Amino acid sequence: MPAKKDVDAIIDPKGSLEILSHQEIARLTDTSSSGLHELFRQCALAVLNTGSKLDDSREVLERYKEFQISILQQDWGIKLDLKQAPSNAFVEGEVIMGIGEHLFAVLRDIVFFNNEIERLVKHSGDKDAISNLVFHILRNAKVLKSSSKPDLIVCWGGHSIGRVEYKYTKDVGYELGLRGLNVCTGCGPGAMKGPMKGATIAHAKQRIKDGHYIGMTEPGIIAAESPNAIVNRLVIMPDIEKRLEGFVRLANGIIVFPGGAGTAEEILYILGVLLNPENKGMPFPLIFTGPKESEDYFSQIHRFIGDTLGFEAQQLYKIIIGDAKTVARTMKKGLESVYQYRKEKGDAFYYNWLLDIAPEFQEPFEPTHENMSELKLSLELPKHELAANLRRAFSGIVAGNVKDDGIRAIEAHGVFEIHGEENIMNPLDELLKAFVAQDRMKLPDENGYKPCYKIIK
Amino acid sequence: MPAKKDVDAIIDPKGSLEILSHQEIARLTDTSSSGLHELFRQCALAVLNTGSKLDDSREVLERYKEFQISILQQDWGIKLDLKQAPSNAFVEGEVIMGIGEHLFAVLRDIVFFNNEIERLVKHSGDKDAISNLVFHILRNAKVLKSSSKPDLIVCWGGHSIGRVEYKYTKDVGYELGLRGLNVCTGCGPGAMKGPMKGATIAHAKQRIKDGHYIGMTEPGIIAAESPNAIVNRLVIMPDIEKRLEGFVRLANGIIVFPGGAGTAEEILYILGVLLNPENKGMPFPLIFTGPKESEDYFSQIHRFIGDTLGFEAQQLYKIIIGDAKTVARTMKKGLESVYQYRKEKGDAFYYNWLLDIAPEFQEPFEPTHENMSELKLSLELPKHELAANLRRAFSGIVAGNVKDDGIRAIEAHGVFEIHGEENIMNPLDELLKAFVAQDRMKLPDENGYKPCYKIIK
Amino acid sequence: MPAKKDVDAIIDPKGSLEILSHQEIARLTDTSSSGLHELFRQCALAVLNTGSKLDDSREVLERYKEFQISILQQDWGIKLDLKQAPSNAFVEGEVIMGIGEHLFAVLRDIVFFNNEIERLVKHSGDKDAISNLVFHILRNAKVLKSSSKPDLIVCWGGHSIGRVEYKYTKDVGYELGLRGLNVCTGCGPGAMKGPMKGATIAHAKQRIKDGHYIGMTEPGIIAAESPNAIVNRLVIMPDIEKRLEGFVRLANGIIVFPGGAGTAEEILYILGVLLNPENKGMPFPLIFTGPKESEDYFSQIHRFIGDTLGFEAQQLYKIIIGDAKTVARTMKKGLESVYQYRKEKGDAFYYNWLLDIAPEFQEPFEPTHENMSELKLSLELPKHELAANLRRAFSGIVAGNVKDDGIRAIEAHGVFEIHGEENIMNPLDELLKAFVAQDRMKLPDENGYKPCYKIIK
Amino acid sequence: MPAKKDVDAIIDPKGSLEILSHQEIARLTDTSSSGLHELFRQCALAVLNTGSKLDDSREVLERYKEFQISILQQDWGIKLDLKQAPSNAFVEGEVIMGIGEHLFAVLRDIVFFNNEIERLVKHSGDKDAISNLVFHILRNAKVLKSSSKPDLIVCWGGHSIGRVEYKYTKDVGYELGLRGLNVCTGCGPGAMKGPMKGATIAHAKQRIKDGHYIGMTEPGIIAAESPNAIVNRLVIMPDIEKRLEGFVRLANGIIVFPGGAGTAEEILYILGVLLNPENKGMPFPLIFTGPKESEDYFSQIHRFIGDTLGFEAQQLYKIIIGDAKTVARTMKKGLESVYQYRKEKGDAFYYNWLLDIAPEFQEPFEPTHENMSELKLSLELPKHELAANLRRAFSGIVAGNVKDDGIRAIEAHGVFEIHGEENIMNPLDELLKAFVAQDRMKLPDENGYKPCYKIIK
Repeated sequence: MPAKKDVDAIIDPKGSLEILSHQEIARLTDTSSSGLHELFRQCALAVLNTGSKLDDSREVLERYKEFQISILQQDWGIKLDLKQAPSNAFVEGEVIMGIGEHLFAVLRDIVFFNNEIERLVKHSGDKDAISNLVFHILRNAKVLKSSSKPDLIVCWGGHSIGRVEYKYTKDVGYELGLRGLNVCTGCGPGAMKGPMKGATIAHAKQRIKDGHYIGMTEPGIIAAESPNAIVNRLVIMPDIEKRLEGFVRLANGIIVFPGGAGTAEEILYILGVLLNPENKGMPFPLIFTGPKESEDYFSQIHRFIGDTLGFEAQQLYKIIIGDAKTVARTMKKGLESVYQYRKEKGDAFYYNWLLDIAPEFQEPFEPTHENMSELKLSLELPKHELAANLRRAFSGIVAGNVKDDGIRAIEAHGVFEIHGEENIMNPLDELLKAFVAQDRMKLPDENGYKPCYKIIK
Repeated sequence: MPAKKDVDAIIDPKGSLEILSHQEIARLTDTSSSGLHELFRQCALAVLNTGSKLDDSREVLERYKEFQISILQQDWGIKLDLKQAPSNAFVEGEVIMGIGEHLFAVLRDIVFFNNEIERLVKHSGDKDAISNLVFHILRNAKVLKSSSKPDLIVCWGGHSIGRVEYKYTKDVGYELGLRGLNVCTGCGPGAMKGPMKGATIAHAKQRIKDGHYIGMTEPGIIAAESPNAIVNRLVIMPDIEKRLEGFVRLANGIIVFPGGAGTAEEILYILGVLLNPENKGMPFPLIFTGPKESEDYFSQIHRFIGDTLGFEAQQLYKIIIGDAKTVARTMKKGLESVYQYRKEKGDAFYYNWLLDIAPEFQEPFEPTHENMSELKLSLELPKHELAANLRRAFSGIVAGNVKDDGIRAIEAHGVFEIHGEENIMNPLDELLKAFVAQDRMKLPDENGYKPCYKIIK
Repeated sequence: MPAKKDVDAIIDPKGSLEILSHQEIARLTDTSSSGLHELFRQCALAVLNTGSKLDDSREVLERYKEFQISILQQDWGIKLDLKQAPSNAFVEGEVIMGIGEHLFAVLRDIVFFNNEIERLVKHSGDKDAISNLVFHILRNAKVLKSSSKPDLIVCWGGHSIGRVEYKYTKDVGYELGLRGLNVCTGCGPGAMKGPMKGATIAHAKQRIKDGHYIGMTEPGIIAAESPNAIVNRLVIMPDIEKRLEGFVRLANGIIVFPGGAGTAEEILYILGVLLNPENKGMPFPLIFTGPKESEDYFSQIHRFIGDTLGFEAQQLYKIIIGDAKTVARTMKKGLESVYQYRKEKGDAFYYNWLLDIAPEFQEPFEPTHENMSELKLSLELPKHELAANLRRAFSGIVAGNVKDDGIRAIEAHGVFEIHGEENIMNPLDELLKAFVAQDRMKLPDENGYKPCYKIIK
Repeated sequence: MPAKKDVDAIIDPKGSLEILSHQEIARLTDTSSSGLHELFRQCALAVLNTGSKLDDSREVLERYKEFQISILQQDWGIKLDLKQAPSNAFVEGEVIMGIGEHLFAVLRDIVFFNNEIERLVKHSGDKDAISNLVFHILRNAKVLKSSSKPDLIVCWGGHSIGRVEYKYTKDVGYELGLRGLNVCTGCGPGAMKGPMKGATIAHAKQRIKDGHYIGMTEPGIIAAESPNAIVNRLVIMPDIEKRLEGFVRLANGIIVFPGGAGTAEEILYILGVLLNPENKGMPFPLIFTGPKESEDYFSQIHRFIGDTLGFEAQQLYKIIIGDAKTVARTMKKGLESVYQYRKEKGDAFYYNWLLDIAPEFQEPFEPTHENMSELKLSLELPKHELAANLRRAFSGIVAGNVKDDGIRAIEAHGVFEIHGEENIMNPLDELLKAFVAQDRMKLPDENGYKPCYKIIK
């Protein structure tokens, strides 16, 4: 198929209420390094590149380097003026409405989180400031919903999964949707799209018109995992750590489908947080699930968790294989405990304030070669610290695989080196090899996957 | 899988405004032969039997012969009290909201069309009375939508189709939905469900919250083709002829997917109507389409039409193979002509008053053995009369295949005999054999299909 | 002020869903005596004549004898084409939206009730048929609201009242509205408009966006009492008797403000119905109220009821003077009994099926000179029969005062003669004289009021 | 009437989306001097004191000194817990919904403007920062509406006006509402309430369900001018200058009804701003209007403007006496020029960015005795500077009349002294005397008005 022609278009915020002040427009238009324009341009591009088969951020940015976006102030509001935009976002020259909304969501969040970071986060390590910041961003994005029951399920899993696994994520989403539950994912393809599709059909059958399909992303990953248009609440968090905090505070329960390094990062994050003694006894429904064909995958994950974080960590989740209906029922039951617990403690259903998230899970980790090679991976660490470091290791691998900065760093300095005790390095090595063998690292292409890391035992 | 237990439940008209007068309740409760209770019970059962694998009406009625439904008058309205209802319609003991709505739609239509028939149709053969009746039923069911552009596509095709064809009907529905079009079908499974599913996903992406998914059925067929829950406007027409008139007057364009005898009946109906000299020159977008795998199927249909109705009839439709996007584009373009034509003639977008439907297409055809054997099938007839008789022949075969009365008639008196000229009987025989070979007559079961007819050349 | 120029305009059913069949358009366009066109024209004229100071139907019809209305069939629905319409209904050449809606309500009801009468009312004296008919008309007009509590208050009272009384009706409406109650009136000026205005302000304060302001009228009276534009559910009943039945079946409670002959007719109707032994024990909140200045008025009414219908009838209502808040509170409390009673009996909140209405209150009374003079007014009659006859007497006076037919009859044949026993005729005479003295018979004009009746003792 | 008992109640944010972060709750609960609790308590009290006859802030605070408010964090959001609240806000123990919304608006704005002031206004005299701040507060309060036409009319005028003037403000509001226009006022009684009441009735007739009734106030004045419950968008600005900037940037046109010192302050503000040479040529519809009875009042205002600001200033407004319809028509026409101008300049309809507001109109003026006595009032000043100083003089008088701080200052230090040239002092003196004579300074009470100022010529 010949490349489709890029598109020029003016986008109208139909149904959106985005109204910007002069100051905000100035910042979005500021192309200097302190300005927000380039950040805005890149996120907008990612949004428009929906449905693309490309998950290499650098390639995306290269491919559309002529893409331009500017803001037109109009009498009744603002418009966006696009030049050379990816054609995927358009049907017969008209932008898909959902994608148009995403563009304005990007605008809203970038303006907002920059203002708020400036105001709130005076010094690093201020746990509460960060939790409040995450809250404010989510509220501003209209993602916090005052509802009478916990009903939001976060679904994690890989963007690069096979047809059978994908079908299964749809089935689970369908069963969740039939039971009136809403879905939040990382908003790209694969396991992030399937549950939303399933839930959409189920919500149509249940006449639920305001189903929430929340997509939560961050500027580094968005280009690799373009939001799918079903997402009707898109949020751009400032970085991966705030995105992860957003997921776990928003979630009334979490379902993990098969995935690669990113999914492993997510699993280690939630396990690390739940292993924190402060969080002991808090009900947190956590289900790992996949079709019968993924049984081995989860056996290996389960083993890896046992080898590194131990038996206690294995008690925090439940593995259900090949039974979408049981997944939904188990989750629904789990939500009952969440309901009781929050009611008792007077905590909000829409934001888990009670969850204690330690600084090592909040502080942004920059995956430089140095930082990666210095990660301490030893069984002598307290379990949640080990989880934090393993999380960082996987975070670095994700960056090296699909993020623009990471890919450039690998090109410049070679692969990341990850050091650690053998009894951690061995299962880690195996797990990563399995991810590669199963095409879970990146969307498969003709060149095959080239690892961006080296395990040093 | 063991049979699931039948369900007892009280159904509440959530979101529905159905309010009945004492007189109406009395008629629905009247179990005498002049009363409506048995008709109501059978249609309600069909609605509840959603998603069933059974398309034999008689078996459905047998299987659920203990099913009971009654009306409870409450202070704020009415409720339905169900005993021994099919469990498919329920999730964790709660009726699926869409199915609940369908039950009240059944109630509304049965009450209404009985009143209206009584009032309007004083003597048979009153063309205008029937067209007005069809209009009133559709209006009462809130199916007539005053919109600024023609946008309703009727999709026909079999309830028994394979996975590849089914996937294709979803793709076409998706492309229609992306372009803002709405869908009307006969409301059962297969080609009647796929386009709605595809359109639902596309409408979600386009943020179209009030997509119309119209299902039009009639008491004879509903048990064999239970409405799927996506249908958000269900209409029960009094009989197959009024249902067909409803389809063609409602349609701004028609897409035909592969199917069996019912689909053939529909094709012959619309071709017969369009061949009527009174309708000459009226734009009526009509597309036959299927995946690459269905190319032969449509070749044969095309040949059959050529052999029986001739070259002129072949000019009335367009065949597009394996290209969902082109189907949607072609349809969209066709709607432009419809728009121009109706504007010019001052006709409504939502009801094609201008279409002339001759009495032979309006009068109910009762498929008795006698009527079937006396059908005149000869090339000497005017084309639209031949089309009318062929339509009747297929209608009878559908009855013999899946309708309760038809199946009982076949059991009692043996197969229908269809007589006619050899140059019609031969292609007809071939076509029917192909339907059988391709499992299009009925949903496949272990016993295989046993024809309910015999072609006498 | 010089007469304002009449207006030509095309009216678009914005927000309305009125879609007509060819058959219905034909009937509305039919200017023969069996057709509906003249009826439609007169009602439409009345609706457009909103806010007029004229309450003489004949004069209204004369003044606008050039007024024309026709129906335009359009691609997307219908429009109304007006010629020489009263300018009151327009602001800067645009019809007031509420009045535009009223025009389409007129259309809807006239079409509907003609169809239904034809279908339902096979022979006179069929009580149930009439009650079902009234129900069907109200349902079709979307006036029956399935709500969780009884909340609809019917307000009666004169169209010709003074400023102080008018202000008081607003106060009562305000207090009802603050308590979440809805209002139904006869939809003209005076006591029919004040409560709606008050309720509108209160509903705005209570953020009730879907307040019901029901106006119920009939073709004979509408020209004298043009609906005010606040009415957001206008219903045209076929005649005065069905309108009265509509009021009392719809009402969860009734408030009577001061008024003239029409108000007396209403009071006698409800008392007559409640005196029916079949209705004994049914809670029916009925309050007579006015400002301090109206105390004498109600004393006289109370005395008249005592003199004619006796002590028992006086127990059926409560008189509250000059205390709007207490009126609203008393009514709210009364609704509690209605709630309990209907719940217990399984009757609907939105339609009082249990109320027994005897034939003498259902049968249309034609106020000819002969019928008027033959009314039997004697204390020997059972109370509810006497009430029925007194009701007819006042009904005739209303016709002679403001209805087109009545005024013409008086012109042609002189005043109505009303005969009866002296102990009825005396209080009746006094009451009527008081109405005249207080300007309650008609809107005051320079010529003063000329009685259309003569009391023969 | 005995004093009504104060009320204890829990208020639920029905329909509101207010969700607070822990940080925000902490600030609102902080009773230290740097905390927001006392500010919140006072504004909440003012809101609850709706419909009171008291316009002396100090007395209000005294009367309800036992009033307490606290925030309850709940599972699904927050609630407000009130103790000893004014009973006016309640109907049968339930808070009037509009007042409940106002409480949450207070909460929202106090939290928000404190955050924003902190972030935006780094140093005084930053014109753009203040204009952006005002914009952000209005946007956050959902007051900025992206509409296709300019339609927001700011109405100014006194809280203490007579019945005839009040009725006239309703008539004007009614005519504005019939023409689809929205209303913004200072949200107290009198001329701030009448136009909203009129518009509410007109919007009901025009079926406008989302009419905007914006009330804009500030913590100093709110206790003297409690918002009326019709206001459906209440905004608390940080101080009087930002409130005035809010009014003139939000307004598409301004109507001034009769009033006292506060109205004079507003007139001088808008004239001062429009006299700024930077604003020359900008269309800004400005109408002074009242009933026939107020003709003298406006003659005197007109003369005062001529005497102080000169002929040019008199060209900026139009005086229309006793003709509500012409006011509405003139305004509607004026909006056409606004529409053209903003379209041409690419400025927003909902916020007048182009208006240049000089620092002397933005900087908060603290009405101490010293500041008041040092005001320079001389004809030698440029006109817009003189306007600025006259504005400050009236602002001080308002404070001395009704604001808590001002009243206390007068008690402690005697009346304000206002110095100036005789040819300004004389007309000023006359104007103030007229305000006193006409009861425009304060709501009349038995003690009569005691001036808080002295004119030193």
